[in-house]
Amino acid sequence: MKKISPIKIKPNQKTTDLVEQMKNAGFGARKIGLASEIAKEIFSDDKTQLFIGLAGAMVPAGMKQIIIDLLKEKPGSILVTTGANLTHDLIEALNHSHYHCDSWDDEEFNKKGFDRMYNVLMKNDVYQDLENFFEENWDKLSKSGSQSELIKNIAKLLPKDSNSILKTALDNNVEIFCPALSDSGIGLMIWGRLAAGKTTNIDAFKDMNQIIDTAWTASKKAIVYIGGGTPKNFIQQSLQFSSGADFAIQITTDQAHPGGSSGAPLEEGKSWGKLKPKATHVDVNCDATIALPLIFSDVIKK
Amino acid sequence: MKKISPIKIKPNQKTTDLVEQMKNAGFGARKIGLASEIAKEIFSDDKTQLFIGLAGAMVPAGMKQIIIDLLKEKPGSILVTTGANLTHDLIEALNHSHYHCDSWDDEEFNKKGFDRMYNVLMKNDVYQDLENFFEENWDKLSKSGSQSELIKNIAKLLPKDSNSILKTALDNNVEIFCPALSDSGIGLMIWGRLAAGKTTNIDAFKDMNQIIDTAWTASKKAIVYIGGGTPKNFIQQSLQFSSGADFAIQITTDQAHPGGSSGAPLEEGKSWGKLKPKATHVDVNCDATIALPLIFSDVIKK
Amino acid sequence: MKKISPIKIKPNQKTTDLVEQMKNAGFGARKIGLASEIAKEIFSDDKTQLFIGLAGAMVPAGMKQIIIDLLKEKPGSILVTTGANLTHDLIEALNHSHYHCDSWDDEEFNKKGFDRMYNVLMKNDVYQDLENFFEENWDKLSKSGSQSELIKNIAKLLPKDSNSILKTALDNNVEIFCPALSDSGIGLMIWGRLAAGKTTNIDAFKDMNQIIDTAWTASKKAIVYIGGGTPKNFIQQSLQFSSGADFAIQITTDQAHPGGSSGAPLEEGKSWGKLKPKATHVDVNCDATIALPLIFSDVIKK
Amino acid sequence: MKKISPIKIKPNQKTTDLVEQMKNAGFGARKIGLASEIAKEIFSDDKTQLFIGLAGAMVPAGMKQIIIDLLKEKPGSILVTTGANLTHDLIEALNHSHYHCDSWDDEEFNKKGFDRMYNVLMKNDVYQDLENFFEENWDKLSKSGSQSELIKNIAKLLPKDSNSILKTALDNNVEIFCPALSDSGIGLMIWGRLAAGKTTNIDAFKDMNQIIDTAWTASKKAIVYIGGGTPKNFIQQSLQFSSGADFAIQITTDQAHPGGSSGAPLEEGKSWGKLKPKATHVDVNCDATIALPLIFSDVIKK
Repeated sequence: MKKISPIKIKPNQKTTDLVEQMKNAGFGARKIGLASEIAKEIFSDDKTQLFIGLAGAMVPAGMKQIIIDLLKEKPGSILVTTGANLTHDLIEALNHSHYHCDSWDDEEFNKKGFDRMYNVLMKNDVYQDLENFFEENWDKLSKSGSQSELIKNIAKLLPKDSNSILKTALDNNVEIFCPALSDSGIGLMIWGRLAAGKTTNIDAFKDMNQIIDTAWTASKKAIVYIGGGTPKNFIQQSLQFSSGADFAIQITTDQAHPGGSSGAPLEEGKSWGKLKPKATHVDVNCDATIALPLIFSDVIKK
Repeated sequence: MKKISPIKIKPNQKTTDLVEQMKNAGFGARKIGLASEIAKEIFSDDKTQLFIGLAGAMVPAGMKQIIIDLLKEKPGSILVTTGANLTHDLIEALNHSHYHCDSWDDEEFNKKGFDRMYNVLMKNDVYQDLENFFEENWDKLSKSGSQSELIKNIAKLLPKDSNSILKTALDNNVEIFCPALSDSGIGLMIWGRLAAGKTTNIDAFKDMNQIIDTAWTASKKAIVYIGGGTPKNFIQQSLQFSSGADFAIQITTDQAHPGGSSGAPLEEGKSWGKLKPKATHVDVNCDATIALPLIFSDVIKK
Repeated sequence: MKKISPIKIKPNQKTTDLVEQMKNAGFGARKIGLASEIAKEIFSDDKTQLFIGLAGAMVPAGMKQIIIDLLKEKPGSILVTTGANLTHDLIEALNHSHYHCDSWDDEEFNKKGFDRMYNVLMKNDVYQDLENFFEENWDKLSKSGSQSELIKNIAKLLPKDSNSILKTALDNNVEIFCPALSDSGIGLMIWGRLAAGKTTNIDAFKDMNQIIDTAWTASKKAIVYIGGGTPKNFIQQSLQFSSGADFAIQITTDQAHPGGSSGAPLEEGKSWGKLKPKATHVDVNCDATIALPLIFSDVIKK
Repeated sequence: MKKISPIKIKPNQKTTDLVEQMKNAGFGARKIGLASEIAKEIFSDDKTQLFIGLAGAMVPAGMKQIIIDLLKEKPGSILVTTGANLTHDLIEALNHSHYHCDSWDDEEFNKKGFDRMYNVLMKNDVYQDLENFFEENWDKLSKSGSQSELIKNIAKLLPKDSNSILKTALDNNVEIFCPALSDSGIGLMIWGRLAAGKTTNIDAFKDMNQIIDTAWTASKKAIVYIGGGTPKNFIQQSLQFSSGADFAIQITTDQAHPGGSSGAPLEEGKSWGKLKPKATHVDVNCDATIALPLIFSDVIKK
């Protein structure tokens, strides 16, 4: 049995040292430390296929760069995310920003044209620029045959130096899947085009093949769930009839007892065959904006 | 100011009386009581268009009948749900059941062929029957042009007396939307057909038109969110550029501070224009399996 | 294996019927049902010694009557609670009320003399009446040798027909323990007397003997934890070197992963010997104001 | 309005730099950053009286050193904590350790003599050494007239170089209050002496005077709540009729909606007068074992 060692805060301490110390403490700190260790294992092994599930408004909350850097560290990964994160990523790529708010009056925000996501604001006028983007580029976008293809076609329209998840994924052979793309600002823009009489035909099920194929053929598989929702579940089901994941990190504040997929501990996945019986895994019960920069502090090298 | 009245448990008390008493108590009980009042208002006014967002494994947890009865009470409602709930509804319509488990060993369950959702189990062999269903009925299903059409086509194949959400919706003019249908057992079955060389073409964005149209044209709108995820967000965005909802009930155990859409209080929707400034609304922070039979105890009359 | 049965809301349904149905559903509903069954077992067996831990502002939230009725149903029980609940019980016994508030502006409440507990308010002027009560009755109160004796002496001063936890406990041979009585409005009042030059001598440890004695000598023991905190822990430690509890119900919204005693699942108590290996127990993860009237709906007969 | 800046993980990054970046991100990260700023303000101003409320099993989880270092950085602070934290601090001062466990079987642990606190274990045989300590030193301990005096008398018995909260507090003029000391292992030991026929007389209310006095006379007041429970509430009530706190940090995973004091946002304290209308404050919704080393990374200099 291993002893708990109290965490010692040292002046000028490196984050990696703190996280290493956390592994020797208890409760959530211990889990941050364990997750960091698993992360290092995942990212140091080229043969491990990584699936990242990314839910929650992570781009508005300033987690974009960490995702970008993770994709650069592990080209060929698969990223499943919400339409919201892609929309906010596109919005920032179109030179808009998100803003702080530490207290709120939602009626006031509405009058002033701000949309609130907890303590983060977006200006409502971003939708005009989004609309222009889809109007101007409709010819190139409308030919997409699947949601992942549409995402790639959007990415191709961004400037070379665009510091975005969309562009980074394109440049690093990362396939982005978004099974509910219609459920987002991007979805609204496509609806706007259709309402304006334009046409397109994007298949709702076409993307399944590639992710299931990858899940079933990769010899070693790792999953990192940042939040739950559709991104997590879409990866989970792709793994279901495969041999299961070997490594798994889940970061969530959702609870197990209400029975939803988002709050289900990784262990539950063993019953379904989504996680190998001997998989190395940890559930980190923490706000992802706090957990992410700790867990991946020793993974991002560039 | 209104006084708190202590709740008195009476022998043979009716649930509706208890819920009425809850309105006069504090904390969560108060919210159950308020939600019940709003529910009665929504269901008693024929002119109010209802949108129900249904996430979480509500069918496996035994909430199917309540949803069925709500749809019967308010024909013409719109139901947005997860592929999982539709899959489990179909599974039960194919005469399978879900089972209790009050303690668990997931490796054991895996060996025995059980898939666990917290304290509920499903036999893994349901997938064989699902597969047969899609194989046998592929001709009728493959012609669907949108996800909602596919859902309707599945419902049409069920026996007349099928006590299912799918069939009830069909019979009561309730449109079911599922923006991430590929993310479910039903999705897996479609993938299976495609992998077997069959073809289909189901548009990923086609369904947006109808729900947005309804949201924009209905003079009075009510929302009931049972859990968050894609179902909630898809309704929220459909309301965004409409006049906003007039009545709203949200039942969730997700928290606001991690910033995700699922845990966002209804009030936040005012900044986006999804909720009217003067809307009648309540957030119920409670396991939906406990809250649902209380909140709707005085709404379901049949 | 037992099948899940969907809950059916019936018009005029009795709460006891709903709770019975809940037992056959999943997730939290199942736990309400199981807890109700355990509650019936605890209350129907005269030989079982009951320990109730009561934390959270349950009196302000309108849960007073349920506690009162439970004490009447099981005379001789032990109640461990917070000073806050006793203070609010006393405040109501002195003819003050608590009030609803469904939205808040705390600076405004402060100016108007209201103290807020989530969606419940108390008038700040209750403190004047509390002060008078302690001033007028100081002779009788100051002689108390322990915190439980002080509580009993307060109860004795209440009118015969006082519908309070304090009086009901006194009349039903229920010992009330409050290990942190100084941490409450009652504590403040005692401090006020001492600051005014009065004296008293209430031993901080004297009460331990009786509760530990009861825990160690009772042949069958049941625990009901409504919230965590000191009330739960004080009972838990009294059980620690006994044979452990036979029946246990815990109602809490606290989570296990942050490691605190309040959120610790009952199962954890087995390692400490606080719960018997074969104990019948259930953790109900729910707002107590919602769970209490359901769980005890078939126990309170008067 | 200030823009959100995405967090950039840099190799060899210092924790203080990460926390500074967190302030510019959203959701929980933002709050860690704000809390760090408030912490620096509290600790850099000698005239601010600090009250620390410490609940949860923070010593077993390896947070002891951070508390020790905070007390050294701010001599004269007031620490209110649970009997459990003091007991575990004493246990470690008696050369016992706590241990990791990442999975659990509580019946097994019981047989092997381990007591579990989530993912932390303690050997059950510590109680023997605790007992010896109280038996051997009873003469010196039994004379204590209040709970804080007893705590001080325990601290005086520890070796000079004891790296404990107890000893550090003694050496740095930090008064430790524990309103529910009987509710702890230390309480059990005192009960053991009493059961063995020894006597003592420790007043339950005597400690109130000093903390209320300090709260009422200090011109500038700061509060840091690590968890809720009795420690938080005891400080809150001491502030109630003072001018209120000027600075406040609360770290908790408890939620507001169930209405308990532990989960109440700091803002609620304004209605009671516990927090000044213009106070600088932040609620950090995070596991304290993760939040503490971040928030205080730029405060602990030694």
